[in-house]
Amino acid sequence: MQPLPGFRDFYPPDFAFRQLIFSRWREICRRFNFVEYDGPVLESLELYQKKSGEEILNQIYHFLDKGNRIVALRPEMTPTLARMIEAHYKEYKKPIKWFSIPQLFRYERAQKGRLREHFQLNCDIIGEADLEADIELINLAIDILRSFGLGKEDFIVRISDRQFWSEFLTKKGVAIEEWYQFFQAIDKIERDPKEEIERRLGGLAKEVFELIEKPCHWERFEVVLEGLRHRKLEEYAQIDLRIVRGLAYYTGIVYEIFDKAGKFRAIAGGGRYDDLLKLFGGEDIPAAGFGMGDVVLGEILKEKKLLEPSFPRLDVYVVFPEEKKNPLGLLLIEELRSSGFSVEYSFHPLKIKKQLAQAQSLNARFALFVSEKIAEGFVELKNMDERKQFVVPVEQLVGLLEKKD
Amino acid sequence: MQPLPGFRDFYPPDFAFRQLIFSRWREICRRFNFVEYDGPVLESLELYQKKSGEEILNQIYHFLDKGNRIVALRPEMTPTLARMIEAHYKEYKKPIKWFSIPQLFRYERAQKGRLREHFQLNCDIIGEADLEADIELINLAIDILRSFGLGKEDFIVRISDRQFWSEFLTKKGVAIEEWYQFFQAIDKIERDPKEEIERRLGGLAKEVFELIEKPCHWERFEVVLEGLRHRKLEEYAQIDLRIVRGLAYYTGIVYEIFDKAGKFRAIAGGGRYDDLLKLFGGEDIPAAGFGMGDVVLGEILKEKKLLEPSFPRLDVYVVFPEEKKNPLGLLLIEELRSSGFSVEYSFHPLKIKKQLAQAQSLNARFALFVSEKIAEGFVELKNMDERKQFVVPVEQLVGLLEKKD
Repeated sequence: MQPLPGFRDFYPPDFAFRQLIFSRWREICRRFNFVEYDGPVLESLELYQKKSGEEILNQIYHFLDKGNRIVALRPEMTPTLARMIEAHYKEYKKPIKWFSIPQLFRYERAQKGRLREHFQLNCDIIGEADLEADIELINLAIDILRSFGLGKEDFIVRISDRQFWSEFLTKKGVAIEEWYQFFQAIDKIERDPKEEIERRLGGLAKEVFELIEKPCHWERFEVVLEGLRHRKLEEYAQIDLRIVRGLAYYTGIVYEIFDKAGKFRAIAGGGRYDDLLKLFGGEDIPAAGFGMGDVVLGEILKEKKLLEPSFPRLDVYVVFPEEKKNPLGLLLIEELRSSGFSVEYSFHPLKIKKQLAQAQSLNARFALFVSEKIAEGFVELKNMDERKQFVVPVEQLVGLLEKKD
Repeated sequence: MQPLPGFRDFYPPDFAFRQLIFSRWREICRRFNFVEYDGPVLESLELYQKKSGEEILNQIYHFLDKGNRIVALRPEMTPTLARMIEAHYKEYKKPIKWFSIPQLFRYERAQKGRLREHFQLNCDIIGEADLEADIELINLAIDILRSFGLGKEDFIVRISDRQFWSEFLTKKGVAIEEWYQFFQAIDKIERDPKEEIERRLGGLAKEVFELIEKPCHWERFEVVLEGLRHRKLEEYAQIDLRIVRGLAYYTGIVYEIFDKAGKFRAIAGGGRYDDLLKLFGGEDIPAAGFGMGDVVLGEILKEKKLLEPSFPRLDVYVVFPEEKKNPLGLLLIEELRSSGFSVEYSFHPLKIKKQLAQAQSLNARFALFVSEKIAEGFVELKNMDERKQFVVPVEQLVGLLEKKD
């Protein structure tokens, strides 16, 4: 039997790799003073219906539950965050800086290498309208990638502004109902044939392509770029008006991060969504955030060999005579474990040679030989690296084992 | 809007509480040389159909996906583990000692305080038939609870053996197809009225109740109890033939852990399931394991005030003059964060007094004042506990901040 198409098993090395990514994410978020939250993996479909773009709704894993509710495996975290924030907004000091590492789900036609689930770091700043918050988020995303050993030769943050296009569309007299289609067309510029995009942009096509191709003068971009310059991060970013993010709810600065070689899908993406939260509770709350998935990032880190999980060494392997386990040895195991050491032994009778082979295969630091002498307070301890063996009093064991190599 | 009935939002304090439980689980599992894995949250319903008891099948969250597969939110981890192990059994050294912390789902009629999801630590030993493996698992479960500060006055491991009952049923000539119903009746002894149980046990009722009430002589119990005695854990356990575990697949030693006051549902439960893995890949592999949920354990720890989450202190709050943020101050923030410190500042212009109030409310260790003097390499540093303030050279900052209180 196999896992469902698009779902991953995490065998211990895969899990260790995932945990390395998660713990790095958590560490850098801590430095930026973000705190972690989580929400339900299953939500009412309604939560996503009015708030998300169609492209997400079509791909939602949803179904009817036994209580006749239409429920969905969360396709994104922002609606959950918005729901949670609106319920308790007044109780929190602003700005609220929260992050989460939810598993998210999409039902797309099965494609090679295309998963139906991934884990996604979500970092959001709620209750702060200043562009400094957008800069902080871009800064955080850059620092996370740098913490994995990725540099400016590896990735680029492509930044745009929904407000730039809103102003453009307003000037052109485009009805607001047509904006979403416009953003969808821009979003597809790099994927679909130019003729197809031109058709969808209609009379605006020529001007749009000109705007995209020539350098852009827009004060809000200057503010963001200056903020990054002050932090010596300007070489990690560039303005790119083709970035609009598909999702309907973005309202301001938006960005996506790509590998410079262009081999992978986006590493991360986000932006400002000032109008979203009021849909949940009526209150007008500025907000911005980004998401960074574990799959694309993991592929890049594997390709560049930047993250190689290793398992911690076993501290002690306890070797018993084949004939009998002295009960004092079993008690010693329990005591060593209670003192914080990782300890292993064979559950069934085994030749001493085979026990030592097990110790070796578990990369044990020490083998500890229990014989009848344990009744007088002595065991033999073998340092597996130095291959030296000594008789030691049991009461000195903890001290001897603590000298980590 | 609310989360779905039976699902939890984890606001930061709830998340911190959950993380404390998870990290304790992980730490004790490490000491016992278990390694972590994970599987998909969604599996084919088929995976559970032949392997689990009816009580789980009735409560499974399942639905038809767009590819016409009947899929289920995992109600338990063991079938996933069995699937994963069978696919790669030959590659692993035995015994395999794995743990996982999956979120599990059940669709039950909504009851007050009864959730539809919980996280459950799953610890399993695969490929070891010796009773020592059962003892190791009981030992691990006890040590986990002790690591939270729970003692023998707080909880008890109630141990039984499916083989005891199998032998009994064989002797009585009960057809094997009726065993599951028998175990279901025993499993309900403490919940359903005695008459109802007697009716379900039929002619065996009197003898069954006698067996349960009087001390039991059964060699395998002696082995397990002796193992616990050697480890000085005998006071945490007792033999109790009423424990059979509902699930169809158990074959040997089974146990459940309860609070001694009897106020809560089971804290943990598990046992040996030697016949399960061959259903997945044909190979006959002995296995045993237990599960411990986060909900009941969390309730007990809260009641006894044994686990109070605290947030790490903010290292540095950077205070800028209200009029202008000196860019060197922004660069300093980025550098301090890159050195591993948690740093916060106000994104918008704010009176110095209010910035200090923010520093206080974030429990900052230091406030760092950036003025024009930063151009000459100086800032002012205020220890927020001692309320002392000094002018310090920027190059000495990292050293000064590192002296953690």
